[in-house]
Amino acid sequence: MRQHLHRIEVATRGRGLVEVTAPILGWVAAQGIATGLLTVWCRHTSASLLVQENADPDVRADLEAFFRHLVPDGGGERYRHAAEGPDDMPAHLRAALTQTQLSIPVAQGRPVLGTWQGIHLFEHRTAPHRRELVLHLIGEAADAARNLVQPFDVRA
Amino acid sequence: MRQHLHRIEVATRGRGLVEVTAPILGWVAAQGIATGLLTVWCRHTSASLLVQENADPDVRADLEAFFRHLVPDGGGERYRHAAEGPDDMPAHLRAALTQTQLSIPVAQGRPVLGTWQGIHLFEHRTAPHRRELVLHLIGEAADAARNLVQPFDVRA
Amino acid sequence: MRQHLHRIEVATRGRGLVEVTAPILGWVAAQGIATGLLTVWCRHTSASLLVQENADPDVRADLEAFFRHLVPDGGGERYRHAAEGPDDMPAHLRAALTQTQLSIPVAQGRPVLGTWQGIHLFEHRTAPHRRELVLHLIGEAADAARNLVQPFDVRA
Repeated sequence: MRQHLHRIEVATRGRGLVEVTAPILGWVAAQGIATGLLTVWCRHTSASLLVQENADPDVRADLEAFFRHLVPDGGGERYRHAAEGPDDMPAHLRAALTQTQLSIPVAQGRPVLGTWQGIHLFEHRTAPHRRELVLHLIGEAADAARNLVQPFDVRA
Repeated sequence: MRQHLHRIEVATRGRGLVEVTAPILGWVAAQGIATGLLTVWCRHTSASLLVQENADPDVRADLEAFFRHLVPDGGGERYRHAAEGPDDMPAHLRAALTQTQLSIPVAQGRPVLGTWQGIHLFEHRTAPHRRELVLHLIGEAADAARNLVQPFDVRA
Repeated sequence: MRQHLHRIEVATRGRGLVEVTAPILGWVAAQGIATGLLTVWCRHTSASLLVQENADPDVRADLEAFFRHLVPDGGGERYRHAAEGPDDMPAHLRAALTQTQLSIPVAQGRPVLGTWQGIHLFEHRTAPHRRELVLHLIGEAADAARNLVQPFDVRA
């Protein structure tokens, strides 16, 4: 059993989703782990992680619009914590509603993302920021995925 | 230290929660791991995972009603991504607000779920779907849970 | 590779955030693991976990106010599950919107929390409760964090 650690820096352009699937999959592939567990940690409280469809850019636009509506911007009339700008407290709230961390099983050398799943950094501040993700991988070179060909069913 | 992988297929009846605690606990029990970490990954962007009370079906009905209100259905007048039906973009939003993944410590051969905690697949589409969960378990046969009898307190 | 398990009890004063960063970091430091993965599991369906800014108490007050507005209290006129009080079903909904679990990479003996990140137990019931967290740590004494000094960039 081995472990690997890595850090990714992501330059955002302000509010919205930045897909980070490719660099994460690339790093995992380079570690020589066939079976394991990948963890992605976002080191911020005003940016977060989101697994979403990566095929249609309209999904990303709708996601951003939904969160902008759900968590209104505002200064001191709306929030106590207003000194860092009208988008700062909303950024904390949006982060609270999404994920700071993801752990994805690795089988046959690859995180088991579904066909449409992409990993995104969700920037919640309006200004561009540099964000930092830490990757942790634990596992082994041997392939333990034989069980995967024998699913069983759960009926609703 | 050993690892095990498995896949569960879940047939849903449309929107709502399907409890998957029993098959997950059954699979863990069969692997002979006393101490470890179980990860459940949902391979979809329009279905997700939720840990909730499994005793009262009214909780599940209220949960479904709350999310239906929070994330309104709609076509092109509301969402850009509307070609796949008025429930598709809402499904992505509901998944974004809940979990794609859960990792649960295993002690004395059993995930440490609380008394009232059940693991549920949360179907967000109105039509029935077949959904896929991947299970990953890492751990060992030896019992490392002796510390659990010595809790310490944190006062608010 | 080794594993450690622990349990923390948290006494809450009713609705709001209780920071638990210090006892968690203290326990990790005492295990002698340089590189690994820490998992925190909350054993409840009416309390949850949240990573948020720990510098400004106003952030915590705004967080509590936001969730109180997003998930209204109410009895039978609003929720089917109303027998346990007007704050019980809202507590389940607030837990559904936040986290039951966090897994944090450990590097050089310390969870890789960002500068402003604190781990909080989020109590959703109005009455004080005793809550239970389970901690799981897997890793090894050897330092595998050398890669961390070589980040690479992702441009939006």
